[in-house]
Amino acid sequence: MTSDFNYQQIVKDQMVIPSLLLKRYHQLKLSETEVMVILHIHRFQMEGNTFPTPEEIAQFTSISPEDCTKILRQLIQKNILLIEQEEDEKQVLTECYSLEPLWVTIYKADYPASQANREADQQQA
Amino acid sequence: MTSDFNYQQIVKDQMVIPSLLLKRYHQLKLSETEVMVILHIHRFQMEGNTFPTPEEIAQFTSISPEDCTKILRQLIQKNILLIEQEEDEKQVLTECYSLEPLWVTIYKADYPASQANREADQQQA
Amino acid sequence: MTSDFNYQQIVKDQMVIPSLLLKRYHQLKLSETEVMVILHIHRFQMEGNTFPTPEEIAQFTSISPEDCTKILRQLIQKNILLIEQEEDEKQVLTECYSLEPLWVTIYKADYPASQANREADQQQA
Amino acid sequence: MTSDFNYQQIVKDQMVIPSLLLKRYHQLKLSETEVMVILHIHRFQMEGNTFPTPEEIAQFTSISPEDCTKILRQLIQKNILLIEQEEDEKQVLTECYSLEPLWVTIYKADYPASQANREADQQQA
Repeated sequence: MTSDFNYQQIVKDQMVIPSLLLKRYHQLKLSETEVMVILHIHRFQMEGNTFPTPEEIAQFTSISPEDCTKILRQLIQKNILLIEQEEDEKQVLTECYSLEPLWVTIYKADYPASQANREADQQQA
Repeated sequence: MTSDFNYQQIVKDQMVIPSLLLKRYHQLKLSETEVMVILHIHRFQMEGNTFPTPEEIAQFTSISPEDCTKILRQLIQKNILLIEQEEDEKQVLTECYSLEPLWVTIYKADYPASQANREADQQQA
Repeated sequence: MTSDFNYQQIVKDQMVIPSLLLKRYHQLKLSETEVMVILHIHRFQMEGNTFPTPEEIAQFTSISPEDCTKILRQLIQKNILLIEQEEDEKQVLTECYSLEPLWVTIYKADYPASQANREADQQQA
Repeated sequence: MTSDFNYQQIVKDQMVIPSLLLKRYHQLKLSETEVMVILHIHRFQMEGNTFPTPEEIAQFTSISPEDCTKILRQLIQKNILLIEQEEDEKQVLTECYSLEPLWVTIYKADYPASQANREADQQQA
């Protein structure tokens, strides 16, 4: 292999995101900065860090750790982000982020047949 | 299939993005809004629209078409985005966006062995 | 751009597949050839061809169009693949493949909480 | 969240593969079983296991560990797969698989401008 180019590096670097997040965030009243924080959380999770700190997230963005903390709080209040407890291999409870509320929102809204279910969910809530 | 849920919709909705874009944009002095415009261009391209208008992009964002035009111009000046000419099936020349300069920047910088090449490139520039 | 290398080509070439398909197909008693036919159908769909012919699929594989027809029939009998009718833009009914039964099978089986639902589904069927 | 469905599980389960692998393997005289072994190696790598054993791979396939060993040897002889040495965090040398020769083959062949380079490579070989 005399290539001066590393194809495998590019192939392995690709990650998957829901394209509906890009199409819907503005409708959901999320700002570009909030979406970038969401994408960083998703990326950290895919890399095995399920509870990145505001400092870890902020270092990849133009915002300060303090503003990142504020955005994380907003995302929780807007019912986009959730903090869950999970058991690790040693049965120790640890906290982790879940983006489940976001995925529910963008995918349920897209699926006409589930309209009825959504209304039912909302009445239960 | 009595499922009230459409798995195929979610499977088909997933799109691929370079994770290094998320890790590097701040270093490259790109703002969150600029990255979102880049991601929208990438998404439009994957969907078959290789030259989305500022209006088409802006409708999915919190920015106006005018600000979107400004950002597109900035991305070209920063050597992130390129307008190319390509021939369609009927041999008509049409314009399309290319993100090649961005991918070159993020992947060359990441590949130690190409350090020498990069320096050579820079001397040529 | 004097690069002798096209990064954008690689970035745009990447496609998304459910990793559980790779982990589960043997358990589901699917052969390697059947999975490759499934992956080809999925790829054609992502490229906009929702009802590829046995000839179109077979040309990318080591099997003949006749054997491909046989495999497609088997996949339908195994409740992995479905032929659906959909309306195109001109309200004309056309046929298309759906892999929904496959995704239901691999994802429902993976989700412990839905065990009860599955049993309920089966009783209804 | 009263949803009986786990969207996040599906979102997180998606993995990326080069679509040219599906389009080219038959031309490259690879069988469906060989491609599935390649996809399993790629999946293991993305999950952090860079040197899966024949047993680990075979358990997800219809082939025996012995046949898997044979296929791995064939892939190396066909210059598709490579065993590399890499240093882990503790400076210990470990072996790992690299699919770089495969990616070079499918992507260089696709890029007309690199035709010359390929011929040069072949002469050196």
